Amino acid sequence: MVVTSRAALAALDDADPLAPCRARFALPDGVIYLDGNSLGALPKAAAERAAHVVGQEWGEGLIRSWNQADWINLPRRVAAKIAPLIGARPDEVIVADSTSINLYKLLAAALRLKPDRPVIVTEVDNFPTDLYVAEGLVRWLDAPFELRAVERNALGAALDDRVAVLTLTEIDYRTGERHDMAALTRAAHEKGALVLWDLSHSAGALPIDLEAVEADFAVGCGYKYLNGGPGAPAFLYAARRWHKTIEPVIAGWMGHATPFAFGTDYVPAEGIGRFLTGTPSVIALSLLDTALDAFNGIDLRALRAKSIALTETFIALVEERCSGHGLVLASPREAPSRGSQVAFRHEQGYQMMQALIARGVIGDFRAPDLMRFGFAPLYVRFADVFDAVEALATILETGEWREPRFARLATVT
Amino acid sequence: MVVTSRAALAALDDADPLAPCRARFALPDGVIYLDGNSLGALPKAAAERAAHVVGQEWGEGLIRSWNQADWINLPRRVAAKIAPLIGARPDEVIVADSTSINLYKLLAAALRLKPDRPVIVTEVDNFPTDLYVAEGLVRWLDAPFELRAVERNALGAALDDRVAVLTLTEIDYRTGERHDMAALTRAAHEKGALVLWDLSHSAGALPIDLEAVEADFAVGCGYKYLNGGPGAPAFLYAARRWHKTIEPVIAGWMGHATPFAFGTDYVPAEGIGRFLTGTPSVIALSLLDTALDAFNGIDLRALRAKSIALTETFIALVEERCSGHGLVLASPREAPSRGSQVAFRHEQGYQMMQALIARGVIGDFRAPDLMRFGFAPLYVRFADVFDAVEALATILETGEWREPRFARLATVT
Repeated sequence: MVVTSRAALAALDDADPLAPCRARFALPDGVIYLDGNSLGALPKAAAERAAHVVGQEWGEGLIRSWNQADWINLPRRVAAKIAPLIGARPDEVIVADSTSINLYKLLAAALRLKPDRPVIVTEVDNFPTDLYVAEGLVRWLDAPFELRAVERNALGAALDDRVAVLTLTEIDYRTGERHDMAALTRAAHEKGALVLWDLSHSAGALPIDLEAVEADFAVGCGYKYLNGGPGAPAFLYAARRWHKTIEPVIAGWMGHATPFAFGTDYVPAEGIGRFLTGTPSVIALSLLDTALDAFNGIDLRALRAKSIALTETFIALVEERCSGHGLVLASPREAPSRGSQVAFRHEQGYQMMQALIARGVIGDFRAPDLMRFGFAPLYVRFADVFDAVEALATILETGEWREPRFARLATVT
Repeated sequence: MVVTSRAALAALDDADPLAPCRARFALPDGVIYLDGNSLGALPKAAAERAAHVVGQEWGEGLIRSWNQADWINLPRRVAAKIAPLIGARPDEVIVADSTSINLYKLLAAALRLKPDRPVIVTEVDNFPTDLYVAEGLVRWLDAPFELRAVERNALGAALDDRVAVLTLTEIDYRTGERHDMAALTRAAHEKGALVLWDLSHSAGALPIDLEAVEADFAVGCGYKYLNGGPGAPAFLYAARRWHKTIEPVIAGWMGHATPFAFGTDYVPAEGIGRFLTGTPSVIALSLLDTALDAFNGIDLRALRAKSIALTETFIALVEERCSGHGLVLASPREAPSRGSQVAFRHEQGYQMMQALIARGVIGDFRAPDLMRFGFAPLYVRFADVFDAVEALATILETGEWREPRFARLATVT
């Protein structure tokens, strides 16, 4: 039984062991932020860190900060903070580039590990940039290389002995539907294929155990549930068993065994470090470094428990308070199959979301008809869920969303 | 005749039309910064911009800032500020990723434009990461793809009808020696090859005219003379004539024709925008955006004139004040063949540079024996040159550099 009265929800907040985490974030007044799945909120300490890395480390330290502020090891230090969130060992993770670039690097490397297998398998509903990256790579390599993008329920059948790598995003970016990582990894391995998981909508929202599911590779985003700031550097994981054989296709100086020797020959760093490329933004890395401290002391099972309670509450409240307006749940009803986000379909979802945002409840819209709401367990409260649904109910009951100011422009893409 | 008295040099500062630019930078007290060729100094306005983009745009605006703060167009807006510095039209430049990644993207694309030509030609003394990137690409592609890295004077002979692309760095990162971009581009074109210039040690230090030299492609660094901050995003140039045929090998959502449509098929953006990949660091981009304003109102010919005067003065002073200590000029003596940096060789150059840095004169050392000094004309003064050489002379005369604290550790790489 899900509690749905505001008083009961406020009592849940009072009893929430994660409640104090909210104070680690700078959230604007008058806003209920349900889009942390797209861009995480600002950790207060990150703002202080920005002033320090810019004013002191860059401004005062200048070039000396590569050593004095240990800039050179930032990609490894930040990775070590991400490792426990994804069930990896610190030396299996590196922070570098963007999710798209890291996906490219790992797909390219995976194709070389399986030279007789020219096929990449993915889900046709995978995150678009994941599709584009794989598509671009096979188009550039030309036949026989091929991207096989199939429906979710056809993934098993798509795995055959021509498949080098299966690449999937654990949590669907629209509906929040969750793949069974262990089962799919096993199925791919049984056919001799490698597996690359995109954890962009998972990391920081629920526990992940890459080691237990025996994943080969993974990538993920630094600016969603990890709160590293807009366009924060991404992470990349390769299981230890691949460290000796995997070759980086983009061989930059940061991934060199001796980056400051400036030798003319490329010698890849031992282990995961070889997936570093050019010079990363030290400022962006520093902010992600500090942002990850918001996870200090957090039990990931408690995080997941709160995430489930928030999404259950949201679904129950919307179905109770907004019935009769044609909203249809697009997310899995069963909590174990769902990430930390919920989507409802409505043909006029775009306008409704604009009206909601105008009232300070920030979710987002994904074409053609999805209103999407993310529940970052570190800073979203149960009372916020109640207030958000009240705002939605008001918009629906008053028809406020039909106001011309919320109309969808023909040019919106 | 080069003036070398401190009074005369101070008078040059008084008369310098660029002198007021120094006030745009936050330079630490007691430091003479001669390493802007490695990491540019902090523009004061960039520190303010950092506070704004973090606190306001991210913290308050949250996801809304993609539109409200126009984050989505930052890569193009920043590129438009770089274009006049490199003789490009604004729609020929984009800011994205790192120099290494951009080099990879353009080399890969160039190989596809010349499908019957499997060879990349470069200089064996090119910047190491440029060599690594080219080497990694051809190794991954396997035979017949090949990197032909030759001595500077053998470049002409290395160009034949198997060469797809000639890639060079205009200014040598160690000696500051400058290539003749026009002549080399012409030579490559005569053999049917494309040309890709790395402008990392040029942009912001001297005028470049990519259009006049008929370059095909270029890349460059945002954090050296452009002062965008450590690991700032890099830029990428493709001449308009290639915009319709060049295909991005790394196809990410930011380079899509309609990035927010989230369609499953990749449709490259018109023009240079297709070389965007994943989400860039908005914070790093914003700092580079503001940093470039330090070039507002700057005549690049005046910038070059000052750069030459600074390096001429430095060479003359070192040869006058430090003679007899075995320093050997490693940079071209003729100003037109030199960038905005000067290197002197000495077997104990490492220790000497450490001693100099301890005295607040910051240059750097490059193996095996180069003491390297950069002269960023926006903020280095003629009097600084005098004072830097005085410090060097003192270190040499007193033998201070022999102190154990400056010794080179065996493990230094």
